[in-house]
Amino acid sequence: MIVQKYQDMLGMKSVIREISAYANARGKEIGYENVFDYSLGNPSVPVPEKFNRVIKELVDTREPIALHGYSPGHGLPEVREKVAAYLSKRYGLPYKMEHIFMTSAAAGAIAHAARAVAKEGDEILTFAPFFPEYVPYIKETGAELKVVPADTESFQINFEAFESMCTEKTAALLINTPNNPSGVVYSTETIKKLAQILKEKEAKYGHPIYIISDEPYREIVFAGVDNPCISALYDNTLMCYSFSKSLSIPGERIGYLAVCPHCADAELIVDMCTQISRGIGHNCPSSLIQLAVAEMLGETSDLSVYETNMNILYKELTDLGFTCVKPGGTFYIFPKAPIEDAKVFCKDAQKYDLCMVPSDSFCCPGYFRLSYCIQTEKVERSLEALRKIAKDYGMEKR
Amino acid sequence: MIVQKYQDMLGMKSVIREISAYANARGKEIGYENVFDYSLGNPSVPVPEKFNRVIKELVDTREPIALHGYSPGHGLPEVREKVAAYLSKRYGLPYKMEHIFMTSAAAGAIAHAARAVAKEGDEILTFAPFFPEYVPYIKETGAELKVVPADTESFQINFEAFESMCTEKTAALLINTPNNPSGVVYSTETIKKLAQILKEKEAKYGHPIYIISDEPYREIVFAGVDNPCISALYDNTLMCYSFSKSLSIPGERIGYLAVCPHCADAELIVDMCTQISRGIGHNCPSSLIQLAVAEMLGETSDLSVYETNMNILYKELTDLGFTCVKPGGTFYIFPKAPIEDAKVFCKDAQKYDLCMVPSDSFCCPGYFRLSYCIQTEKVERSLEALRKIAKDYGMEKR
Repeated sequence: MIVQKYQDMLGMKSVIREISAYANARGKEIGYENVFDYSLGNPSVPVPEKFNRVIKELVDTREPIALHGYSPGHGLPEVREKVAAYLSKRYGLPYKMEHIFMTSAAAGAIAHAARAVAKEGDEILTFAPFFPEYVPYIKETGAELKVVPADTESFQINFEAFESMCTEKTAALLINTPNNPSGVVYSTETIKKLAQILKEKEAKYGHPIYIISDEPYREIVFAGVDNPCISALYDNTLMCYSFSKSLSIPGERIGYLAVCPHCADAELIVDMCTQISRGIGHNCPSSLIQLAVAEMLGETSDLSVYETNMNILYKELTDLGFTCVKPGGTFYIFPKAPIEDAKVFCKDAQKYDLCMVPSDSFCCPGYFRLSYCIQTEKVERSLEALRKIAKDYGMEKR
Repeated sequence: MIVQKYQDMLGMKSVIREISAYANARGKEIGYENVFDYSLGNPSVPVPEKFNRVIKELVDTREPIALHGYSPGHGLPEVREKVAAYLSKRYGLPYKMEHIFMTSAAAGAIAHAARAVAKEGDEILTFAPFFPEYVPYIKETGAELKVVPADTESFQINFEAFESMCTEKTAALLINTPNNPSGVVYSTETIKKLAQILKEKEAKYGHPIYIISDEPYREIVFAGVDNPCISALYDNTLMCYSFSKSLSIPGERIGYLAVCPHCADAELIVDMCTQISRGIGHNCPSSLIQLAVAEMLGETSDLSVYETNMNILYKELTDLGFTCVKPGGTFYIFPKAPIEDAKVFCKDAQKYDLCMVPSDSFCCPGYFRLSYCIQTEKVERSLEALRKIAKDYGMEKR
């Protein structure tokens, strides 16, 4: 009598997790320092000391019944007010508390946003390559996830494919910039063009088409890269933010949904999210963690290591002859595999203890992802292994 | 295009929340100390100091990347191990880590458990009176919630009604002892009889019938009251625990699902819960809060005020002639209203600034609930108001 669909999901193992498990097992054999583990997107720099200091101050100074007491389903009003004030100042949009819903990181925000605006019979579009967990989030809404093929030239948007796939059934677009796995940041030009097309489609079909904007890497953007605010360029935007990567606190499961103040039914969507929470039994994030991040708005961990690592890897990969779009942010890089089947290439690379993820599960076969949220010293040591696997495939340093 | 069903849910206001809002508004007029607010079940005693000390020690001593890093979907292994060891020792059952799933309090545990064992076409039975949030939890599974009428003599179980309602379609029973709103604790005799009937029904229908056991009030049990462990008396039990009431930390959203080691498919059910989490985007509770409660197993806030308050109210109510089953635990008492419509009675009581909840939303009309998680001094001051409303209804102290 146990429910089959969740059993079936257990059968579908995550490739990323499998490679990570391999790296850990291999690490036990030869020492983890000797495994070049580029599998998981787990922040490698510590949270700012201030975060821990804020936690201690909260437990020392706040009245305990209030501090650890029930938070309303929307999140704590004082926290929502601070988030709204911060976003207003940063993006010049009139956010109020009523536009903010505190969530279990970006995952919770996306899952809630999608349920609020899409249902059975609707379609949600996303652009390849994309984070595989979008599949279960959208499945739960009853809507269908349609994947727009990648623009593999630049990993911006394949507008031709998008225009033909955006139909009357399209309830929302789920986009992720800076992007996992490509590392690319959508330019202002890209977002403006996207917004223009969407406005025309909205007018044509007579209903809003929402952008669900997955923004956990918003603060990890490299020097000189254009990183536009989607909500400032398209009204019907549901911003999904996480503090996981910017503050290196993925385990604390904290983020927010910020509905653009100019969005259709903005405050109603936020209120609806409280009802979505009721059914799943997850009322809101921890009060203590909500209060702590409210003191950290606009602050980040020292994220500079990611850019350092990216530059080292990008130079080496291109020197070796790999085709690779230069990442504008995140801690991912996404080169083209030297053979059609990236799974075979990644498997082969493991003989040099180089653990990389083939791109098939990102719906964009023929590439591989390196998550370079590791120590720079290890990145440097990994280059020899990269050279060896390249050589095996007939590639050599120019 | 926004989704109608969540808009519709917004229209259905919670009576408890409305009465609480009234109490707060009235408090602003006449001073909150003058409002006898028996509406919400919000703990009124502080968390043990040790909890805050543990939080500070964790941030001071743990390596920050690990402390705030991703927790597996099941919860942190070290936390699950400690919970399993604690439950094994306390209940004499062979719990292992593999039986424990960390959740967003009891709400998350119930919602996950129900989804794991019930689906469209199935039925889940619960016993009146019951916590109204069961309705959205069960609705999300697709199964139908069927309410077994109350045994209003004792608020134990109406076995006659139960036996006729437990059919081939019954996938699970959702029970809550110590009970909100009655305050009654199911006796060993009750649970043994229930287990016996369920085993016969399982044999007859050829499939497991799970008990989803909602146990947030497990630690609030009064002197001399028999408080059996359901999992020790019935194998197919999914225990849903919350630290909200025992440690007075409802805002931290932390609890666990503990599947009885003798339960059918015990470990599989726990694994399935990780897949249920994926779709809703709520991967697991905060790492810091998980680690903190792991150091608090078996400890509680000073819960004695609840028994003190119960005794004062029980004596006064029965002296005034109210029919009332003596609570064995929780911080609720559930007397019979002196007229058929408890809504009218509770509304009338508001003229003495006495805020109580009519029982209709607990599916057991004609009663009213007092949540006595307030200061004893205020309980004592409220007795005069109770006497006045009783007098208006022709009841007087014997």
